[in-house]
Amino acid sequence: MSHDISPLATQFPPLPAIAGATPRIARAHYKTWDRCDLTYVELSEGTSVAGVFTRNICCSSEVELGRANVAQGSARALIVNAGNSNAFTGYRGREAVVQIMDQVSAHLGCAAEEVFVSSTGVIGVPLPKDKAREGVAAALTAEPCSWLEATNTIGTTDTFAKGAMATAIVGGHTVTLSAIIKGSGMIAPDMATMLGYIFTDCAIAPGYLQELLSAAADETFNCITVDSDTSTSDTILAFATGKAGNQRINCSGCPGADAFAAALHDVCRQLAHLVVRDGEGAQKFIAITVTGAVSDASARRVGLAIANSPLVKTAIAGEDANWGRVVMAVGKAGEPADRDRLSIGFGGIWTAKDGQPVPDYDEAPVAAHLKGHDITITVDLGLGDSSATVWTCDLTHGYISINADYRS
Amino acid sequence: MSHDISPLATQFPPLPAIAGATPRIARAHYKTWDRCDLTYVELSEGTSVAGVFTRNICCSSEVELGRANVAQGSARALIVNAGNSNAFTGYRGREAVVQIMDQVSAHLGCAAEEVFVSSTGVIGVPLPKDKAREGVAAALTAEPCSWLEATNTIGTTDTFAKGAMATAIVGGHTVTLSAIIKGSGMIAPDMATMLGYIFTDCAIAPGYLQELLSAAADETFNCITVDSDTSTSDTILAFATGKAGNQRINCSGCPGADAFAAALHDVCRQLAHLVVRDGEGAQKFIAITVTGAVSDASARRVGLAIANSPLVKTAIAGEDANWGRVVMAVGKAGEPADRDRLSIGFGGIWTAKDGQPVPDYDEAPVAAHLKGHDITITVDLGLGDSSATVWTCDLTHGYISINADYRS
Repeated sequence: MSHDISPLATQFPPLPAIAGATPRIARAHYKTWDRCDLTYVELSEGTSVAGVFTRNICCSSEVELGRANVAQGSARALIVNAGNSNAFTGYRGREAVVQIMDQVSAHLGCAAEEVFVSSTGVIGVPLPKDKAREGVAAALTAEPCSWLEATNTIGTTDTFAKGAMATAIVGGHTVTLSAIIKGSGMIAPDMATMLGYIFTDCAIAPGYLQELLSAAADETFNCITVDSDTSTSDTILAFATGKAGNQRINCSGCPGADAFAAALHDVCRQLAHLVVRDGEGAQKFIAITVTGAVSDASARRVGLAIANSPLVKTAIAGEDANWGRVVMAVGKAGEPADRDRLSIGFGGIWTAKDGQPVPDYDEAPVAAHLKGHDITITVDLGLGDSSATVWTCDLTHGYISINADYRS
Repeated sequence: MSHDISPLATQFPPLPAIAGATPRIARAHYKTWDRCDLTYVELSEGTSVAGVFTRNICCSSEVELGRANVAQGSARALIVNAGNSNAFTGYRGREAVVQIMDQVSAHLGCAAEEVFVSSTGVIGVPLPKDKAREGVAAALTAEPCSWLEATNTIGTTDTFAKGAMATAIVGGHTVTLSAIIKGSGMIAPDMATMLGYIFTDCAIAPGYLQELLSAAADETFNCITVDSDTSTSDTILAFATGKAGNQRINCSGCPGADAFAAALHDVCRQLAHLVVRDGEGAQKFIAITVTGAVSDASARRVGLAIANSPLVKTAIAGEDANWGRVVMAVGKAGEPADRDRLSIGFGGIWTAKDGQPVPDYDEAPVAAHLKGHDITITVDLGLGDSSATVWTCDLTHGYISINADYRS
């Protein structure tokens, strides 16, 4: 937690314990730092797992193995290494991950495929096997810790601890979701150096949990961007221990399925927003809503073209309602748009309508809105009934300082 | 020319006069500035024209009319307005362009379609018709000026004047190309606020000139990026007056066609590089060559993913051979790549080979290379025989200062 705390930071919420999910932390000394950097979460037998992963082709062995192992549906443990992403390290990197899976599965008496490993940090340095072995051994026998301690342990360049919670009533039983996430740069749709973990006591079949997680990720994690760069290691995993006592949810028709889906979506949205709020150098949280599109997918692509435009992001940093740059970004998105039907607003006030500037719009409330921390941009394409919202942050001197000074 | 001169600036070359192409400049007072801001180039009868334009859907009326009028193949005049892009101004903007076309065509006794108009500057303010009328009237009767004066007049945020020249022997006759360009931000493939004009005395059919210009643009203007943002006004026009005395070039089999094509390509490459060298905040000129790709188009897309990555661009600004960020950018390009065959070099020295860091590469020459102004990044995908080179600049505090402080 190296840089100044983001001005968009929020308080870490009081995350409830989840029966059947026990976090522990240890020092693996992956870097020369005096902090815990290895997180272990033990999961009870019968825990369902689902996951979504980076689409970066040059992904890490952790992602390759995790993606393969989610398919069998059950999990007994999560290990997260901080300080070394182990990406682009060839067979040596893969060996380190397999070693961790073997070590933990031997301890728990489970299959190696039930152990999920994530790593975050510098690319290109194989995870040191000796440090991993000693760190894992220490974590396996450590005292349980709080979710806040676990969150601080998975963090790298994060400036504040990020967590979210939700509850749902499922067939008369209250199920609880506690979730943690790390990430602040290399954030783009299809994910980034973003590692997020959702723990719930809900009883739910892994196949249906995967369906819900994929759908939620599509409208949350895949709708945020900090810098358009996509990490090689991104991972979101959901673990459901089944201890809440509810009748197991197998499909959308089951009692409480909708309530659980809504709670899962809510947690994913909270986590995604927190990552943007910790975007490198971020001073403004920007919500971009595109309406009047020919399809939701088209609306999202237009939204992301705006959200990824350096000229739009620097304009917001400069507190400038520069709708011309928004027009430019709409036009470059490669999606259906008609210049003469386009309308653009800031903070709920239209500054351009039907392809022309609004001649006498009230600039005072727009200027006041742009001075705040939470900015809304609304774009109406005037073509159809579909819409999407995406979230990003502004592009500031802080981003340059963090990324031009960082040494690999 | 408002900001400090780019450290990558080069000297304006001694551009030869082109028989049949006469530049003149005037003050239209589009902004409250004491400089010429309207350029007029009179072209002799029989001048062939070809053009490539922005693919931004929200393009200006100038682009719409120019694209339509290039089709008839002949040109008699070019008008360039600086200080107001006239984009996103609806029917009023279009009326201003038509007025200029009518005014100039009446003066020359030509068709309105033979008058090409470009505008650059702020989006969303209709070009004032009275100022345009007076400015055009002054330009039509002004004394001829130099190419340098014309170049300074089309410029807006440019920090130095940009021109290029070439010659070719066509059927025993020397043909000459003199070319000027403006642009420094909102630069991306499919062009940007980039206005470029190539004048040649070569006799060449417009259809074949268009074929050559499109091909050259594809490997030059469409291979540069400053910030991935695509302007609503980009235009490159080539005018061939036919005064060199060569037998008219009609197709690739004609005498001298290859020589002229090479000279045109050379001029386009020079102009494209000059725009990158004036990239907003640029401290480094970066050439990225991708080899071993499955196709040239794939190589170019991988190259542009690297060139548009904020994390790669800030790493180069920080003089950091951060090949891990290059790996990330390759992986997010959406093109065929195999992590374990990937090799990455800086300044001609491989830092990663076959998916792993080169353990003991000589860091001293790499560090020295990165301290220079001209940086080369080489990526071998190890898959096929195709390649491409793209050009960009680094991302610095200067870019943020220019674009966060600018007011629309």
